[in-house]
Amino acid sequence: MVSPKYHIFVCTSCRVNGQQKGFCFSKDAVDIVGKFMEEIDSRDLSSEVMVTNTGCFGICNKGPIIVIYPEGTWYGNVTPDDVEEIVESHIENGNAVERLVI
Amino acid sequence: MVSPKYHIFVCTSCRVNGQQKGFCFSKDAVDIVGKFMEEIDSRDLSSEVMVTNTGCFGICNKGPIIVIYPEGTWYGNVTPDDVEEIVESHIENGNAVERLVI
Repeated sequence: MVSPKYHIFVCTSCRVNGQQKGFCFSKDAVDIVGKFMEEIDSRDLSSEVMVTNTGCFGICNKGPIIVIYPEGTWYGNVTPDDVEEIVESHIENGNAVERLVI
Repeated sequence: MVSPKYHIFVCTSCRVNGQQKGFCFSKDAVDIVGKFMEEIDSRDLSSEVMVTNTGCFGICNKGPIIVIYPEGTWYGNVTPDDVEEIVESHIENGNAVERLVI
């Protein structure tokens, strides 16, 4: 497997027992995943960007949490409305969105 | 947030609708998460290694899937019995376990 150029991990508060609750989930994290997928598709970035939902990153009070590798950039308090800026700035132009970095 | 030195992502087939089924889940992925946590704890690596469960990576036929960043190493067909070797070889000594790399 060749790793994607950018791998975006979005906490949706997935628990290994199948429960779906938690802070990120309650704050529109599923919509954030969907918005990333839309933006990536419409900008034709699917061949180099992957989006994966995750369980808890352990800093719920700063959620919703997103982590982008390989850089290891952590974003907090993300809303669906922030997704377009993250894709344009970070993914397309290589500049982290500093106001959301935690 | 300073990213951990190693971030281990384990597919447990988490779905954003809360369902918990899928190939990795059915093949002991939750036990793999638990085994990583045990190994990391017993080797006193908690300050530099994070383990996060995820949803599907899209290559279920090679599951259970594990991805380790920042290197972006993909492992497939992982079993709980492989975890000790991955931690010792990859995490402690920086050498990927080639027989499991996909």
